[in-house]
Amino acid sequence: MSIQGLGQIVKRCCCRTGRRAVWMAPNLRGVCNARPQETKTTFNMARLVLKFGGTSVADLDRIRNVARHVKREVDAGHEVAVVVSAMAGQTNKLVDLCKQASPLHDAREYDAVVASGEQVTSGLLAMVLQQMGVNARSWQGWQVPIKTNGTHGAARIKEIEADFLVERISQGQVAVLAGFQGISPENRISTLGRGGSDTSAVAIAAAVKADRCDIYTDVDGVYTTDPRIVPKARRLERIAFEEMLEMASLGAKVLQVRSVEMAMVHGVRTFVRSSFDDPDAPQIGEGNLPPGTLICDEDELVEQQVVTGIAFAKDEAQISLRDVADKPGVAQSVFGPLADSSINVDMIVQNISPDGKTTDITFTVPETDYDRAIAVLEDNRDAIGFQNLEGAKDVVKVSVIGIGMRSHAGVAAQCFRGLAEKGINIRAITTSEIKISVLIDSAYTELAVRTLHSLYGLDG
Amino acid sequence: MSIQGLGQIVKRCCCRTGRRAVWMAPNLRGVCNARPQETKTTFNMARLVLKFGGTSVADLDRIRNVARHVKREVDAGHEVAVVVSAMAGQTNKLVDLCKQASPLHDAREYDAVVASGEQVTSGLLAMVLQQMGVNARSWQGWQVPIKTNGTHGAARIKEIEADFLVERISQGQVAVLAGFQGISPENRISTLGRGGSDTSAVAIAAAVKADRCDIYTDVDGVYTTDPRIVPKARRLERIAFEEMLEMASLGAKVLQVRSVEMAMVHGVRTFVRSSFDDPDAPQIGEGNLPPGTLICDEDELVEQQVVTGIAFAKDEAQISLRDVADKPGVAQSVFGPLADSSINVDMIVQNISPDGKTTDITFTVPETDYDRAIAVLEDNRDAIGFQNLEGAKDVVKVSVIGIGMRSHAGVAAQCFRGLAEKGINIRAITTSEIKISVLIDSAYTELAVRTLHSLYGLDG
Repeated sequence: MSIQGLGQIVKRCCCRTGRRAVWMAPNLRGVCNARPQETKTTFNMARLVLKFGGTSVADLDRIRNVARHVKREVDAGHEVAVVVSAMAGQTNKLVDLCKQASPLHDAREYDAVVASGEQVTSGLLAMVLQQMGVNARSWQGWQVPIKTNGTHGAARIKEIEADFLVERISQGQVAVLAGFQGISPENRISTLGRGGSDTSAVAIAAAVKADRCDIYTDVDGVYTTDPRIVPKARRLERIAFEEMLEMASLGAKVLQVRSVEMAMVHGVRTFVRSSFDDPDAPQIGEGNLPPGTLICDEDELVEQQVVTGIAFAKDEAQISLRDVADKPGVAQSVFGPLADSSINVDMIVQNISPDGKTTDITFTVPETDYDRAIAVLEDNRDAIGFQNLEGAKDVVKVSVIGIGMRSHAGVAAQCFRGLAEKGINIRAITTSEIKISVLIDSAYTELAVRTLHSLYGLDG
Repeated sequence: MSIQGLGQIVKRCCCRTGRRAVWMAPNLRGVCNARPQETKTTFNMARLVLKFGGTSVADLDRIRNVARHVKREVDAGHEVAVVVSAMAGQTNKLVDLCKQASPLHDAREYDAVVASGEQVTSGLLAMVLQQMGVNARSWQGWQVPIKTNGTHGAARIKEIEADFLVERISQGQVAVLAGFQGISPENRISTLGRGGSDTSAVAIAAAVKADRCDIYTDVDGVYTTDPRIVPKARRLERIAFEEMLEMASLGAKVLQVRSVEMAMVHGVRTFVRSSFDDPDAPQIGEGNLPPGTLICDEDELVEQQVVTGIAFAKDEAQISLRDVADKPGVAQSVFGPLADSSINVDMIVQNISPDGKTTDITFTVPETDYDRAIAVLEDNRDAIGFQNLEGAKDVVKVSVIGIGMRSHAGVAAQCFRGLAEKGINIRAITTSEIKISVLIDSAYTELAVRTLHSLYGLDG
């Protein structure tokens, strides 16, 4: 942890609460060259939001374990809000009931049914905390209130009136919040969609101006790539918001994409850690946190590597339209009907026309939408005016991600050379400031990911 | 059904909505001597509250059955609100989780956890109704709102703001309400205690000025006594509120006592019927209702019998204090400490003192509180000043109930004579305007109940 980072926290705490506690930093590390040593300094307690997912609260033993994590932070003098998911399996059970009740069920009623899972967990955790002597109280989305738009089943948080929550937690009462839910403009329970509890946690952290949002999950952080494919994958100590956004949306399923977007927009420092850590291990101050990954502003990154990680997404399908007339409005004629059918298009590649008359357009869609996309395009064949339609489901998008590549040349060339040396054919390429994505045959997934992981010096 | 009763309904309906539907009364009966005949008359649709308990909504097949009952009433042109309990077993499961979480759990958190059961059922029933083409919407206690006091776990309804509900149901939308719950003054979910959904239903019926509250349950009405003990027990077509209150509080567990109190205070005509009736059988108008019992004002009773039913309560225990000083304040010295320990005292018998110095006091407490009551009394032995403390758990309170006994002499004497002829010893007697209760050894329960049932001409 850098002194700079710590200073920032202390400053933020001071201006908000003025409460003080003696802080011991036994293991102070960082880029500032401060030597690791026992340092006694004044420490202002932090305001933390802790989020626990479904597997972390799967039964009462695990809920007790969660409560010990919470108690540790309370005992350390922090102000704590907790966000919980439904007990593992419970949401699926409720979703099944809805499907049985009516295949095309009303999303408003679905939300009322499904949100009950988080309601149960929040109450149980508050009880367990109370029994451990921790002052705690549960709150549902409508009580806070966490105001969302009216898109039931996939609502977006519009506003959180947090004064009330801040008052409670600054009085030392742990707020146990039901994740995944809010209240719609029509005074109905709304849910944020699967995995929405991450978003709840980050949004609440932003609203109460928390110093950190700790996401307890079943992995101990964000890795340079999927360790199941690359055993040499390393856990990242820190990752910038922008990088995490690319990692999350490209298949590293540690955090929901929307929660990372929200963390980035509001600058919520988000720490991903394992809920299976010993909850009673002392963790006084950020210098002594257990293994995990801090998602933060790039200013806080300890060492900037050119490439941070390799992500891949297997659930993509490729569609290519051959010999499309190269005239204004043709892209609209292709992607307009797809958008009207709610098909999400990801990579889009259109090269300049070799003859000035026709061109090829290649793009990817979610594999589950592939058949529907083909049908939509065939229906619009005359309007679009393509000669051939080709497609492939057995493709994978592999991405090289790193905020450092903004200031380093040759990163892309290195990627293409590396893949070529292994005989991997690239179907399409797209790039952004901080990533290079290539579409390849899915049979080469492991080979490509391992090759790139080594190539950019990520092997642990 | 009496013409008088019908006239009342028609009048009430007219002044409220003015909507009309043609009503066929194929089976018009009553004290007015109108002959049964096919009568065509104008019928104003009624406003109904239907309540379904846990066994009636135990799974999705049963919820579909409930929906058919609701649809029948909607199709008949009625305005309908439905109150549902949690799916059978669900509340017990949630209560168990709370007990596991913390033996002495916070009632506020208990309420948040346990109320989720009704939330799920209300959403599912709304979905199923929608799928059947019935316009329906679920509402939780906090949405209506059903305002209660702050006694979490056993809250009392203080006020229901029903304008919103009335607006919806008068527009033809079925309101599916989560029973058993409301919202406390602190904006928290409160529950009404076990069986509270009956109370929810009656309270909502009172608030929306319903013409009738139909309680669908697993029995087809209220019987003259428990049919498991007296096979000759008859279903009562009608029973007065006051009688039902005595029946309910004395062990005929068809309806929760508080719901009957509320029905009586607000004059809510309450019809107890079986949820296992064929939901698709036509039931046009009150003259054609299936088997059931209407709990109503005594003015609506078809024929006033002297005795309506025989109730009994086995879960009582008797305590007698011998040779208590007969001086002012002695009753307070006995019952004050019991009240402070939240022990509910039922029958109290104190006779005049034979010698002007000491007397005996006998009373009953719930069997579950017996040991605690004995301990409280022993602790206060000096303050009370009794010589001996005697008690018995194997006792039963048998009650003869009937609004007609107000105007009939000799009902009590008949009871005592009947029991004496069978050699049944009476431990204590209490009476009210409409009931006579005797405390006897529980071994004589069946004999006493059968004897009294025959004695008052109740055998079917």
